[in-house]
Amino acid sequence: MSNGLTALALVTTLKPSPEESSAELLGGQLLDELAALGVTTSKVRVVDYDVRPGVLADMGDGDQWPTIRQQVLDADILVLATPTWMGHMTSVAQRVLERLDAELSEKDEKGRPTMFDKVAVAAIVGNEDGAHQITAELFQALNDIGFSIPTQGVTYWNGEAMGSVDYKDLEETPEKVVSTTKSVALFAVHLATALKASPYPAPVE
Amino acid sequence: MSNGLTALALVTTLKPSPEESSAELLGGQLLDELAALGVTTSKVRVVDYDVRPGVLADMGDGDQWPTIRQQVLDADILVLATPTWMGHMTSVAQRVLERLDAELSEKDEKGRPTMFDKVAVAAIVGNEDGAHQITAELFQALNDIGFSIPTQGVTYWNGEAMGSVDYKDLEETPEKVVSTTKSVALFAVHLATALKASPYPAPVE
Amino acid sequence: MSNGLTALALVTTLKPSPEESSAELLGGQLLDELAALGVTTSKVRVVDYDVRPGVLADMGDGDQWPTIRQQVLDADILVLATPTWMGHMTSVAQRVLERLDAELSEKDEKGRPTMFDKVAVAAIVGNEDGAHQITAELFQALNDIGFSIPTQGVTYWNGEAMGSVDYKDLEETPEKVVSTTKSVALFAVHLATALKASPYPAPVE
Amino acid sequence: MSNGLTALALVTTLKPSPEESSAELLGGQLLDELAALGVTTSKVRVVDYDVRPGVLADMGDGDQWPTIRQQVLDADILVLATPTWMGHMTSVAQRVLERLDAELSEKDEKGRPTMFDKVAVAAIVGNEDGAHQITAELFQALNDIGFSIPTQGVTYWNGEAMGSVDYKDLEETPEKVVSTTKSVALFAVHLATALKASPYPAPVE
Repeated sequence: MSNGLTALALVTTLKPSPEESSAELLGGQLLDELAALGVTTSKVRVVDYDVRPGVLADMGDGDQWPTIRQQVLDADILVLATPTWMGHMTSVAQRVLERLDAELSEKDEKGRPTMFDKVAVAAIVGNEDGAHQITAELFQALNDIGFSIPTQGVTYWNGEAMGSVDYKDLEETPEKVVSTTKSVALFAVHLATALKASPYPAPVE
Repeated sequence: MSNGLTALALVTTLKPSPEESSAELLGGQLLDELAALGVTTSKVRVVDYDVRPGVLADMGDGDQWPTIRQQVLDADILVLATPTWMGHMTSVAQRVLERLDAELSEKDEKGRPTMFDKVAVAAIVGNEDGAHQITAELFQALNDIGFSIPTQGVTYWNGEAMGSVDYKDLEETPEKVVSTTKSVALFAVHLATALKASPYPAPVE
Repeated sequence: MSNGLTALALVTTLKPSPEESSAELLGGQLLDELAALGVTTSKVRVVDYDVRPGVLADMGDGDQWPTIRQQVLDADILVLATPTWMGHMTSVAQRVLERLDAELSEKDEKGRPTMFDKVAVAAIVGNEDGAHQITAELFQALNDIGFSIPTQGVTYWNGEAMGSVDYKDLEETPEKVVSTTKSVALFAVHLATALKASPYPAPVE
Repeated sequence: MSNGLTALALVTTLKPSPEESSAELLGGQLLDELAALGVTTSKVRVVDYDVRPGVLADMGDGDQWPTIRQQVLDADILVLATPTWMGHMTSVAQRVLERLDAELSEKDEKGRPTMFDKVAVAAIVGNEDGAHQITAELFQALNDIGFSIPTQGVTYWNGEAMGSVDYKDLEETPEKVVSTTKSVALFAVHLATALKASPYPAPVE
């Protein structure tokens, strides 16, 4: 049964469809848990689109960000799913943040940035370490744009140091990842519901 | 008039009282704005206490963390105020995070970590750059422990690159810092009120 | 007079030529100082090329990274010049790191990664803070790929918090930035010369 | 046979002696490899000393940093060994960086900061992820103070996500960690030797 909430996952793997992607797998698992709680979900694999470098809402000239942007505006919950490269979020994830930066100057009729009342959570994978730092940079940037972060708002998996196993190649999803993913869905829905019932006031100018 | 909420600022300057501290100044300004909204506030300058290294709730042997910990448990809103050293939060701020790490294994009667429903915001100063990254690391660590982060939950000031001016020595507080501090107070109160009315469920085991 | 060294600046602004770019300005100033010391210099504005997402040396299908890659291979000194967006290096800078990641599996005839004996330095600008953290992430990633970092290997400029002035719009370059840029050139040449005279041994397998 | 070089490991575990420490174990293994190459080595477990908060070379009043500082001054190679807490370096590691910050204003007779010509490498452990980011922050801060970073200058081990195994409890040291530790020793000695033969010029004022 629908709870009236919508969630969008932006999957920021470097690999175009239809290649298998660990980030898409974990992001999808989080969407499944959100759907099980009554959320209407959708997913965009950003690398399949021509998202231009820049910090405007529309860079013109075939830029495909505007269609993704509209889906972010329509969602109550944003799932940012990224793999770890060199210990960092991907260039595709950073590009999403750069494009969302334009939202800071967009205001609704009450003078509030367009991302207010929305909730952001993260799903991070990597064959080597990075999840804590990527969480940090995602939360800081998404919060700056206006997203709220629910308690313990990240699910993740990194392999042991100097390893090369991918999340998608694990024989089974580790139990703790399963329960963390379920919890993140629960907390995201809880906070999105609370903020829908009680929207933030406008910032002080 | 009280709104029933309490806020605690942990000031993590490296300088013991009564030296003037820029972090204490900005943290205090944020507390003032919270008080103006009806919040009961208090402040701890952590370096004045003997907070032992370790990751237990009480390291024994004269450890003064337990009294600070109790104040964190009693607060609805935590303000973490830190200066920037080498581009990083201080060793005192990191020690607070290490000591709060013990809370992950403490649960309330509903099986929820002790920091659930609490809101964290940050106040960061520095004569050189660092606020965005310190925000990132604070939000990630405090969120991991259980704190929720309200929209745009940080006020900050960094001087121009390679400069040596301190926030406390500015002739007047920049207007944008004033309005940001007011906004952070507004958003923290908004979220703390919402979470008090509607507490999080327990995580999935 | 040439000292036999070559330097390449990769400018990772989000803006295509011929727009003015602060990162290109500071990166260019560093190249000028290197040239004054006898280094043969060149510059690539990466966003003008179609650098595909991926972690192979050549992603095929019109990927223009291979031509940039060859210039990196030919250089003794790499200057990574990036602006600050959301407190982070740009998506273009991160893409350069992702593409260089492929070099870890390329070895020379002595079993050494292709980037050994090369020196990396950084040039970072931003109207808001970020230089210290971007320095951190650049040094970690470039060092992982094989670059050595000379003492105090970064020149940078960030404006005061919540400001919107760009480096390129300053009335004059701050004296400390000028002298830091000169020093970085000096140290990069010193280390590159030392490593050219005395190449690293191969890693232990 | 001695090569005339000295190395100092600062171990920044939160646990006082004689508790077993994973950071001390990996830091010690790196010292052993340095000793095998002819380096004279020593080790300080920083938490066993009363290192005061502050950013002066001597904070007075029983501050034990000055004795550690002298050992840093006497060393050609600095090994910074830290565990991972909350994804970050420890408060003890950050305190070491804060205290070394004072060195920026200390100059030798040629006008060079006291840490010039010294080489820094890192040894990082953690039951969860963090090594890449801690490497980043250590390299940035130590480089700022004057240390040079040799190619691939870090050895590390992090366990799989959400795990609780410590490096010291592994049945055997993973082969890749062993070879990486050996390589880091090799590269540190190579660079320290080169810089001893050919010291940096003074920075431009």
